[in-house]
Amino acid sequence: MAALYGGIEGGGTRSKVLLLSEDGKMLAEVDGLSTNHWLIGTHECVERINEMVNRAKEKAGVDPLIPLRSLGLSLSGAEPDKAVRILMEELRNGFPHLSESYIITTDAAGSIATATPDGGVVLIAGTGSTCRLVNPDGSESGCGGWGHMMGDEGSAYWIAHQAVKIVFDSIDNLEAAPHDIGYVKQAMFSYFQVPDRLGILTHLYRDFDKSRFAGFCQKIAEGAQQGDPLSRYIFRKAGEMLGKHIVAVLPEIDPVLFQRENGLPILCVGSVWESWEMLKEGFLSALTQGREIQARNAFTSFTLMKLRHSSALGGASLGARHTGYLLPMDYSVNATAFFSYTFP
Amino acid sequence: MAALYGGIEGGGTRSKVLLLSEDGKMLAEVDGLSTNHWLIGTHECVERINEMVNRAKEKAGVDPLIPLRSLGLSLSGAEPDKAVRILMEELRNGFPHLSESYIITTDAAGSIATATPDGGVVLIAGTGSTCRLVNPDGSESGCGGWGHMMGDEGSAYWIAHQAVKIVFDSIDNLEAAPHDIGYVKQAMFSYFQVPDRLGILTHLYRDFDKSRFAGFCQKIAEGAQQGDPLSRYIFRKAGEMLGKHIVAVLPEIDPVLFQRENGLPILCVGSVWESWEMLKEGFLSALTQGREIQARNAFTSFTLMKLRHSSALGGASLGARHTGYLLPMDYSVNATAFFSYTFP
Repeated sequence: MAALYGGIEGGGTRSKVLLLSEDGKMLAEVDGLSTNHWLIGTHECVERINEMVNRAKEKAGVDPLIPLRSLGLSLSGAEPDKAVRILMEELRNGFPHLSESYIITTDAAGSIATATPDGGVVLIAGTGSTCRLVNPDGSESGCGGWGHMMGDEGSAYWIAHQAVKIVFDSIDNLEAAPHDIGYVKQAMFSYFQVPDRLGILTHLYRDFDKSRFAGFCQKIAEGAQQGDPLSRYIFRKAGEMLGKHIVAVLPEIDPVLFQRENGLPILCVGSVWESWEMLKEGFLSALTQGREIQARNAFTSFTLMKLRHSSALGGASLGARHTGYLLPMDYSVNATAFFSYTFP
Repeated sequence: MAALYGGIEGGGTRSKVLLLSEDGKMLAEVDGLSTNHWLIGTHECVERINEMVNRAKEKAGVDPLIPLRSLGLSLSGAEPDKAVRILMEELRNGFPHLSESYIITTDAAGSIATATPDGGVVLIAGTGSTCRLVNPDGSESGCGGWGHMMGDEGSAYWIAHQAVKIVFDSIDNLEAAPHDIGYVKQAMFSYFQVPDRLGILTHLYRDFDKSRFAGFCQKIAEGAQQGDPLSRYIFRKAGEMLGKHIVAVLPEIDPVLFQRENGLPILCVGSVWESWEMLKEGFLSALTQGREIQARNAFTSFTLMKLRHSSALGGASLGARHTGYLLPMDYSVNATAFFSYTFP
């Protein structure tokens, strides 16, 4: 029987398993619960992985007793540490029929391996934000990812917070708002369903819910789309902050990534990227300003991409490569470019 | 029997009652538990007030059945609202022998009335920060006081957070630190007893304790005293933020306060003021820059003061004034000036 290659995208709320044939054809796709070992513990995590892979084997019509050639796990929160080594050992020892070989990578590495053959930058701007560089040799470095108390610049939470803060400071006469606060103030009272600023405090302290607070970003995006100058200003600033994350990792980037056909590949993940047009000015301005100091003349162009397929695909690819096999991948289908730029 | 005037300082953790004779002599001082009606409820609050005043009457050797002429309550969190009106009614109806007259004010008003006869600005920089203006007519306005998620600029929490953030951003290469981070980085790992930045996250999220986090400010104060340039920079920024709070309320200040003998009285409350020498440069710079726009030429000088006595004294004074009696107060003893400045 021909070799099978498995990949897993393991997130905090749900997971996905893909099985591929050696010519890269997808044989089965299976969804499951969270496989974040920080959240559910190692034991439950390996049980869920085994159960999902067995379901996928059944779906593909193969014998569950025949191990996969390799299984590549792209897991959120999978920094190289003791916990990940234990996870790997438990998979090996607990389930001899599961797979012959394992590799566990971060979700950044899995995402990049889905979109490109040899590395790039992942820039996440969802509820929170973070930037991870994956070099062609697999080494990683990053910027951000410290959460709303210490970072998250350019994320939906950050945009919502900036908007509320500008309104508070303007009413306090502490800082002059850069533009009229009318739209944002009304949108704020209406989104949080409170009559005054005191009411907002409940949403910041007693009933704090990061996702709910970050949801206010959507109203700022709407304002920006309708031309509200303050909303546009905030998104421009967010673009600037996201651009600064790229600038921050420039010195660590293997120069071969700058020389790719469409320049440095930047994989954009998260809902804030839906407002790219509003981020663009600030993003380009930060890169233009930062690249001279941080990368001299090496960084001349870049391409922003979005994933079309699960990072389980990248996991499968990394797993196969770990056994010395190059799984055929159609990167042009897995991810699509939505913006390319060459610095003047 | 001569009339007695009572004052209460009601805080979130403890309270104080003072009884004064009509010549302003202190007859009794009694300490008690929190009288913050938000924390303990109105019923418990009035019970505690009655119990403390009765103890004070006993201590002063007067009959508990003879009501005070007036009782002035300076309570933290006592914004003029329905809850405060109910509190007053329950005192009146529940304890006919307690006092003939009542007045409930904010702790800002009580503090100011302890230090000056006719208003001023209170600038709090403790764990958190806030600025309140009390005009000669008793009207109040303010800036800040929104807590660590939306403000607290210049507070111990803010200083600690700035310090940690500068270290995080510098290691991330996201923002260049204005000075070497060596001292602050070491102080941070040592204060929080963690080996790396990941360890700090526990103190920001799972085990977040605002006071404990703000306590790191002390290490920055020590660094500043020892000449560490980054620590000095952070305190200068804190001074600037505190100065901006004064600038924010300038347009609301009754001009007579500018014309007081030593200029605008600014009452400084909280532990951050112990590092005044380190705040000074930024504070003066913010006032110098802001006063032209916000107060034209009216604001020419100011004096920073610290309370030497409880704001219960101011409460007693306000309570007496409410009955039409001007209780003699020795303001030069109640508060001491520690810095005076006339703009060039």
